[in-house]
Amino acid sequence: MACVAEACAMARVDYPEPVGHLVAELKRLPGIGPRSAERIAIWLLQSQRAEPLSLAEALQKAASEVGSCPVCGFFATREGCPVCDDTRRDRTRICVVEQPAEVLPIERAGAFKGLYHCLGGKLSPLDNVTPEDLLIGGLLRRVAESDEQVEVILAVGADVEGEATAGYLREVLAGKNCSVTRLAQGLPAGGGLEFADELTLMRAFEGRK
Amino acid sequence: MACVAEACAMARVDYPEPVGHLVAELKRLPGIGPRSAERIAIWLLQSQRAEPLSLAEALQKAASEVGSCPVCGFFATREGCPVCDDTRRDRTRICVVEQPAEVLPIERAGAFKGLYHCLGGKLSPLDNVTPEDLLIGGLLRRVAESDEQVEVILAVGADVEGEATAGYLREVLAGKNCSVTRLAQGLPAGGGLEFADELTLMRAFEGRK
Repeated sequence: MACVAEACAMARVDYPEPVGHLVAELKRLPGIGPRSAERIAIWLLQSQRAEPLSLAEALQKAASEVGSCPVCGFFATREGCPVCDDTRRDRTRICVVEQPAEVLPIERAGAFKGLYHCLGGKLSPLDNVTPEDLLIGGLLRRVAESDEQVEVILAVGADVEGEATAGYLREVLAGKNCSVTRLAQGLPAGGGLEFADELTLMRAFEGRK
Repeated sequence: MACVAEACAMARVDYPEPVGHLVAELKRLPGIGPRSAERIAIWLLQSQRAEPLSLAEALQKAASEVGSCPVCGFFATREGCPVCDDTRRDRTRICVVEQPAEVLPIERAGAFKGLYHCLGGKLSPLDNVTPEDLLIGGLLRRVAESDEQVEVILAVGADVEGEATAGYLREVLAGKNCSVTRLAQGLPAGGGLEFADELTLMRAFEGRK
């Protein structure tokens, strides 16, 4: 029984504090669970291919140098916004997205060469996101300040909150110096009918041409 | 057609360089794909709950303060090794594991209160890991320098490379001032017979008592 008492008295070995702290920080990242955080931390500290300091530097650089464009909300550096500053872009079209990251797939598709407006989210009463939380005032200002009539293309998601956001924007933009359009809904390219859900099929029928 | 030529001439917008660099660094982490890296980077830069600088600091601190114990290979800080420096531990038992991270589950189980020796890997001719790549010399030295006879407990994995490593260690430790044991193999606790593979069942029969 002395053995048991002794074992209780002895502190169990854990990671040194800096490792434990790193694991805790990694665990906070989205999609990283406790096991992954531990594995990544160990890899960072032990693998010869790992460069923890270069990751740390990249974090600091991105955090200090990257901000939001005050006009469109996309990522901007000290040199300015890569979208708003590009004079070759069509200034009569503004594509409204929820998040800055959504600009990238649109750009990669090459489907659009106008300007963007990032709302910073979508209306969601359940999560306490009201119109005041989104960058809607800035959009209205851009429309009002434009010399020509603009086309506002609503590229928010096709989920309930996205539809609500689109509906709200249609309302506040009504009568302003702009036309409002919404991205088409229908079958995704390469998608067979057997994989389409009912709502998608309904929208595809409604939008047939 | 002028439109198409124009679109080609226009550079597609991508993330600002610091964001792209951060995504590239995150993509190098084990288990993090391109999509996850992008999502984590965006979260780090945009979420109000994210603290990129505190993650950067944790990385720098862990990288600069945490090293390997020169004796056992477990994580050690400037204050020393939490295992080797604990005088209450049984110095006549050395548990041999592949990686320092494997010390933690053994400690959490509370099944062992001796010392450890981390090999830094396991023998694997296919991956060019030979005995020279593992910290086997240090283990022999510890056994040779011990005043009392020690028990070397081989807690390497039960896979092919683990068995090869165990076999090799048995060989080089034969005739030295130590006894060599191997962790028992058999049914995992709580595991029903229907989930056990043939090799596990065979080992469980062999090891019956």
